[in-house]
Formats: sequence, structure tokens, C-alpha cells
Amino acid sequence: MPSVHVERHLFVVFGATGDLAGRMLLPSLREVASQLPRRPPTLRVLGCGRRPLTDREFQDEVIAWWKKDRVTPLAPAIAWARANLAYQSLGDEGPDDFRKLGARMAEIEKENRLPGNRIFYLALPSQAFPKTIRGIGEAGLHRSAGWTRLVVEKPFGTNLASAHELNEIVHTYFDERRVYRIDHYLGKETVQNLLVFRLANMFFESVWSRECIDFVEITVAEQLGVEQRGDYYDRAGALRDMVQNHLTQLLTLTGMDEPANLEADEVRNEKVKVLRSVEPIRPEDVVRGQYRAGRIGGRRVPAYRDEAGVARRSETETFVALRLRVNSWRWQGVPFFLRTGKCLPKKRTEIVIHFRSPPVWFFGEAIPRNIAANRLTIVLQPDEGFELAFEIKNPGLGVELSTHRLHFLYSEAFGPLPEAYHTLLTDVMRGDQTLFVRADEVEDSWRMYEPILRHPPRIRPYAAGSWGPKEAEELVRSVGYEWSSL
Amino acid sequence: MPSVHVERHLFVVFGATGDLAGRMLLPSLREVASQLPRRPPTLRVLGCGRRPLTDREFQDEVIAWWKKDRVTPLAPAIAWARANLAYQSLGDEGPDDFRKLGARMAEIEKENRLPGNRIFYLALPSQAFPKTIRGIGEAGLHRSAGWTRLVVEKPFGTNLASAHELNEIVHTYFDERRVYRIDHYLGKETVQNLLVFRLANMFFESVWSRECIDFVEITVAEQLGVEQRGDYYDRAGALRDMVQNHLTQLLTLTGMDEPANLEADEVRNEKVKVLRSVEPIRPEDVVRGQYRAGRIGGRRVPAYRDEAGVARRSETETFVALRLRVNSWRWQGVPFFLRTGKCLPKKRTEIVIHFRSPPVWFFGEAIPRNIAANRLTIVLQPDEGFELAFEIKNPGLGVELSTHRLHFLYSEAFGPLPEAYHTLLTDVMRGDQTLFVRADEVEDSWRMYEPILRHPPRIRPYAAGSWGPKEAEELVRSVGYEWSSL
Repeated sequence: MPSVHVERHLFVVFGATGDLAGRMLLPSLREVASQLPRRPPTLRVLGCGRRPLTDREFQDEVIAWWKKDRVTPLAPAIAWARANLAYQSLGDEGPDDFRKLGARMAEIEKENRLPGNRIFYLALPSQAFPKTIRGIGEAGLHRSAGWTRLVVEKPFGTNLASAHELNEIVHTYFDERRVYRIDHYLGKETVQNLLVFRLANMFFESVWSRECIDFVEITVAEQLGVEQRGDYYDRAGALRDMVQNHLTQLLTLTGMDEPANLEADEVRNEKVKVLRSVEPIRPEDVVRGQYRAGRIGGRRVPAYRDEAGVARRSETETFVALRLRVNSWRWQGVPFFLRTGKCLPKKRTEIVIHFRSPPVWFFGEAIPRNIAANRLTIVLQPDEGFELAFEIKNPGLGVELSTHRLHFLYSEAFGPLPEAYHTLLTDVMRGDQTLFVRADEVEDSWRMYEPILRHPPRIRPYAAGSWGPKEAEELVRSVGYEWSSL
Repeated sequence: MPSVHVERHLFVVFGATGDLAGRMLLPSLREVASQLPRRPPTLRVLGCGRRPLTDREFQDEVIAWWKKDRVTPLAPAIAWARANLAYQSLGDEGPDDFRKLGARMAEIEKENRLPGNRIFYLALPSQAFPKTIRGIGEAGLHRSAGWTRLVVEKPFGTNLASAHELNEIVHTYFDERRVYRIDHYLGKETVQNLLVFRLANMFFESVWSRECIDFVEITVAEQLGVEQRGDYYDRAGALRDMVQNHLTQLLTLTGMDEPANLEADEVRNEKVKVLRSVEPIRPEDVVRGQYRAGRIGGRRVPAYRDEAGVARRSETETFVALRLRVNSWRWQGVPFFLRTGKCLPKKRTEIVIHFRSPPVWFFGEAIPRNIAANRLTIVLQPDEGFELAFEIKNPGLGVELSTHRLHFLYSEAFGPLPEAYHTLLTDVMRGDQTLFVRADEVEDSWRMYEPILRHPPRIRPYAAGSWGPKEAEELVRSVGYEWSSL
């Protein structure tokens, strides 16, 4: 791990007593902190929540999470929590509450001689964003002797209008250069590597266009159902929960032109350019699905409509398949197929680049040409890495071909990869926005899906444990392709 | 193994009592025969040599070779030899000897009801080719009720004039479509696969040109010295023994344009086109070397000039490095570096395709751009397969790259590969000339090397066990490259 320069700061977590904060954010935060200078400490953490808790009580709750999740080694984790976690109740988030928060922040900064650098991390449901951001702003907490940064988790808005409105609120207090919209997928090593993979390897980058590529598949398959999140999910659906953010990020990283350099804004400019090149989505390019009861592995899964928190006659989609036309110089005529769903047969996130088949085929009818087309598969989950499928001649007389795959697994080359959060938190602390979603990016992404959000095509049922409704298969087959078997 | 249709024939081996025939040709021949229909037998073998031997004595000699070489399983091999091997002495190869041979052939054909199909295989030193071919021709053995084919081993001539003369003699009796000039390397699965690799995989074929490729290396490294062949070798040298045939074949297979189809002549047309595109070789493009005493592994190796059969002041090269300019639409500006040598540190035959480095480099000075260039290595010996070297991002913060390799080994995918001879013999029997060298191909290849043969640059010494004279390194370094470490 290269040493990283992080300026001393106060890290304020809103929603600190929630699930996300306790189980994901705080453990990562501690891990990042453990790799930074400790005397004087690089960062102090101030948790905020509705409930009135003392610092000690908050620490107890956090430590209880960690014990439950079997964080190891536990002893130094506890020591860190005791030494670094403070808590401030925000009650109903009235102006007074934010003033008190300001006073507490100033106090911690003074005690620890922090220079006024502040990170505000919103580990909150998105409905709570506007009120909290306004609270921070109205109390002037975003102004200090140092820098201040705002971190928000997805979802950022629920459509173009709400995202735009939220951006307006954010920008009232935080310049875009201080805003960090997190998309977990972007913390993944493989996604970062996708940039390097393309830009450091002429071999791949020189075939990265309509000249050589036939079509592209992007799949984020989940095996789980809605679990405890039925209430949230039923208001969101797969398009908002997965497609607008994760799959769209993978689309832009795959489809972008080479940036002028690797500065955050140059990279994001190119990503936005992809979004602006996507032709308006037509109804026939969309398949929305919803799972019915079924079996995954040996386990029986109830129908979506029977899940806790879900409306009995819900029309929310748990599956989306899309055909996108990217009308750019690079991609014109190359369909991008996106799909995501819950209760699919396995957990797998991958990008499959299908290369064109040879223009002349010498190897007979026995091997259909489209089978012989080369494929590059970039796997993000569960085993990050990639595979290159190609044809070789079988030994012996005659020319019989077979398909073989070259595999590369990051974990085989490097051992376990750092947790996604880890990288993202460090980037926030260093002020590197490359992996975060910019305001125009999030709005352009919502704009892209407006036609579906406004006129959602009817829901197609699929059995839990299947690969989605048959209409999704037809979407791809209609242009002569098939989804890759995963 | 797909079933192969081979017409029943008589296989006549000239030089049948020699080393090559006993240890290489006859075992392969038996193996091929064992996979063809046996009743009635697809082929009978008639060995010819100077010495007077009975069939039984000849069989005994062959069986003795096999015992020495631990051919397994031995029992069926012996049974096959007893049942299928006949012998006919050719004495001094006078007209009478060939008449007797003709009578014996007719007799065997009649006995076995063979339809007159004949393969003449010249397992002879090349000086003996003209006399033997004339003998066959003058006795009219090349005319029969069936087809007749002539197989010759390398070397085919010792320069353009002698190759041309030899072709004239051959063509007096054998139409080019009945001539099979063997180059062992062309029997290798990997070389055949090179064609398939390129033509069945758009991924590779679409980067196969000056647009994406920086330079190409072709190396045939031998660890052995001249062994028992000092006398032959000192008259030949590396250029005649290896470059004009093996390395040139690899050059043409790598450099050829896509053929119209996979018919033998279409493929060979494209190979010849490469040879005709090579710019005349200049003196500064050639390094000739000769090994001095040294060590390979732990073993002491004498100087070439101290080997048995070698002239004490020999100027014969045991090492050649070349820079070729292929002035074609596809390759203009892409140097092809060829090298071969005896007493090098290891046995290895490979083609390395060096792709261009990225036109813009985002990843800092720490990783020199030319190091990061992608390489495709096609390995022919000792472990046939290929490797693709590419850059990926190391996990963790910052953008540090490292080079990784994807490996493909034929033996891992398929188990042991068939012996080179096996494929070639079967191709002769089936009448497939694709892997054999055509008359114009062999002449154009000699023509290419005429400048060196006529005005050989002076010999540079190198220590046995090194990678050749330092001038070979400079050849590549002068254009900013280095030979790949093997």
C-alpha cells in the first residue's frame, strides 16, 4: 500500500446509528484510519443521529455491531472506537440541533487541533438528504478554516426532476468540486482497472470500437430477493436501484473515449459524453420483470408480491433488460444490452465484449461463425478478473476448432482485494473525485431513463431462480444474439 | 482423431537403413498405419538402401533401432514391421538397380492388389537427391496406374541456383502438385494453429498489422551444438540449416495476408507474397556468429572449431541474427527480427508479436511506456502454446501497474500432441500440400538470402551458453528494442 497524504480532518457521519454506518462505513473508516498517521490522529469521527446517546453509548452500539459481524482483530477496533468516536444527537434536525452540532464540531476540532477540514457523510435514506444538507448549510457548518466535503450515497434522486432539485440544494452550499456521490461499484478494483486495462493496453484499446466489436453485454445478476428492504425497494425498483447508477456506470466506463488525462473531470467528461450519445430509449428496447415464487438452489423463494413491505398488487420491477443504442462515432451500430435482476440463478456482475466474427469463415458449417466470435469477459463479481475466449485448432488431422478461455483472477495474482469502501473513503479524504459521480452525470443518467420512468412498459413475470422473463431473451435474439450463459 | 481417407498405396523409402529413417520416419509410419484400415492393408513399405539385405535382415535392423529407442508397446511394432516392411537394395543406383526396384514394386503391388499409388520418400542427404530422382524417373517408376508422389526432406538446395536446378530435375518427372517438400516445423500443431489462430479469431487478426504491431521477433534457439553432424553442418551453417527453411516458414506464416481460402495453393501464394515483399537484405542487417568454448548449464562445451568434422579455421556460422524489412501494405515499417543459434542457453522456439505502446501514456515515468507494450508470444518449443502479456493495475490506492501473462499450453488443454511427422505423413498420403513448401517458395526463400550467401559478413564469436554475439543485441537496440528474454 503506497503511503497516502491525507490532511487532518473531522469526519461527520449522519445516520451514524443505522445499519449502513455501523456495518459498512465505520469498519472501513477504522481500517483507513489505521493506515494513516495516529499521533496526532489524522481524523476524528463524529456520529450524528436522532437518538440522544452519550459518546460511550454510541461506541457501545458500534462495538456491538462489530462483535456481531465478528470484526477481527476486535481489540484494536474497540480501542480505536473508544478513542475516536464521538456522538451528537440531532433530534428532529431543527436549526437549534445543527447549531449544537456546530458547537460540538468546533469543540472537537479545538481539542484535537484540527485545521477545520470537514467531511460530511450522509449515511441516510435519500428522502432525508435535503433537510440534512439544508441544516448543515443554514448553520454554516460547510464554511470553516479548512476544506469541507459532502458525501452522499445512492440513490441520488428518483428521477430527473428530483435529482436536479437535489443538485440545486447541494450546490447552494457545496461547490461541485466538494461533492462526492458514491457508487459502490466504482470502488471495485476491477472497475478502476477497467480504465487502466483499456488505456495501458493498446492490444485491447485498439479493438475497442465498432470496427471490431459486435455487441456488449452488461449484467448485474443478484441471487438475493429484496430481503429486509421490501418497503424501500417497492418504491424504487430495479431501474432506480441498479440500472440508473451501477449499470450505467459500467456502461459509461466501457463506452467512453480516451480522456485527455486521468484527472477526475476529464474522465467524467468522457463518461457524460457516452450518456449524451445514447439514443432515446424506445418501449421495445425495455423489458421489465417481476419475480414470482420459485426455487434458487434448493431454497424456496416467495413471490415478490408476498415479500414483507411490498404492495400485494405491486407493479415494481425486480428485473430490467435494456437495449441501448450509443450513437457515437465509436459505437454506432453496436448494441449495448444491459440486464439486472433479483432472484436470478446466481450472483454475477460482468461485462462481455463480443468481438465481430471473422468476415470470411474457413472452418466449415460444423462451427457456426457466431459461436466462434471472440469474447472478452470482465468479471466484477464474485471473482474479479477477466477471461478471453478464443478459438484454437484441436490437435490431430483435419481442422476442428474448440473454444478455450484464458483466465485472469485478481485474487490469484494479488490475494484478497481491498474492500470497495476503503478506496472510496480514502479518495474522499485525499480529494480525488475520479470515482465519484458528477452532478451532470447523475442528471444525464436519469434523463436517459425518463422515457421508461414516465411510461413504464408492463411487468413480465419470471420464476425466481430463472434468468428473467422470456421477453428479455427475445430482446437479444431479435438482433441475432443470445445472452451469454454465465 | 477424425477418420481419414487414405487410398491404398506403396510407400517407398530411399535411405531406409539410415538414422533418420530408422528412428523418425519408420516409427511414425507405423503409427499412421496403425490408425488406417488394416485388412486389406492401406499401405506397404518398401525400404531401399545401398547394402544388400533381405527383408528379414532389414526388419531386424529396424527392430533393433526401436529396441534401442525403447519404442512402446514393442510387440505390435515388431509384428507390424514383420508384416509390412520389405527391402530392395539399390547398390550404386545404376539404371539396372532402378529396373529391379521397379520389378519389386510391381510384385508387391500385385501381391497386395495395390492400385499403383506410390509415395517415394527421400530420406537421403541432399547431394543424393538428383541421382535418385533421375533414377526413379528414368526407370519410369513415377508413372503407374495410380498416383505417384515425391517427398523430400530439407535442405532443398544450398543456394538459389542449386535449388532451381533441383526443382528442374524434380519437375522433369513430377508435376509440382505431386511434390512434398517437408519442413519439420510445419508439422507442429502450433504452426498449423497459427493459421487457425489468426483466421478464426478476429480479436487477433484485427490487430495483425502495422497499425497495432511495433515489431516481430522470431527465435529458434538450440541448446545443442553440432553433435555428430559436424561434417554436414560445417558445409551448411545456420543460415542454410535453419534460417532459409524453418525461420523463413515462421516468417511467412506470421506475415502472410489472409488467403482466399485454405486450399494449399492459396495459402502458399500468400506465403510467397511475403517473401517477395522483403526488401533486399543489407550487410548491416545481418549478424553471423560462431560459438567458442563455454558452459551450458554445468556442462563444458568445446569451441565449434574443435568439434569433430569441423574445419579448424572454419568460417561457418552457428548463429544468425537478421533484421528484415517487409515492404508490404501490412508490414511497412515493422521490423522482423530473426535469430537462431547453436549452444544457446536453452532450447526455445517462439514468435513474439510486440504491439505498439499506447500513443498517450497516463501512468507516469515509473513505468516506461515501452515496457508496458503488450506482447503476444507464440511458443513452438519446448511447450507449445502462447502467452499474452498485458498491464493491469495493482490493487490499492494510486495507479501502479504490473505486467501479467495469460498462458495457454496445448498440452494442458489436450494432453500430448501428435508427433510432427505423423501429421505430415498423413498429409502426404491424403494429398494435402498445405504444410509443404512449394517450388517457388523454396526458390524465393533462397533468393532472399543470396546477398548473405554471396557476401557473408564476418563471423563474430560468442561463448557457448550465451545468447550470441553482442552485435546481435546491437542490431535490435539500434532501433530502440531489445530481444525478449526467453
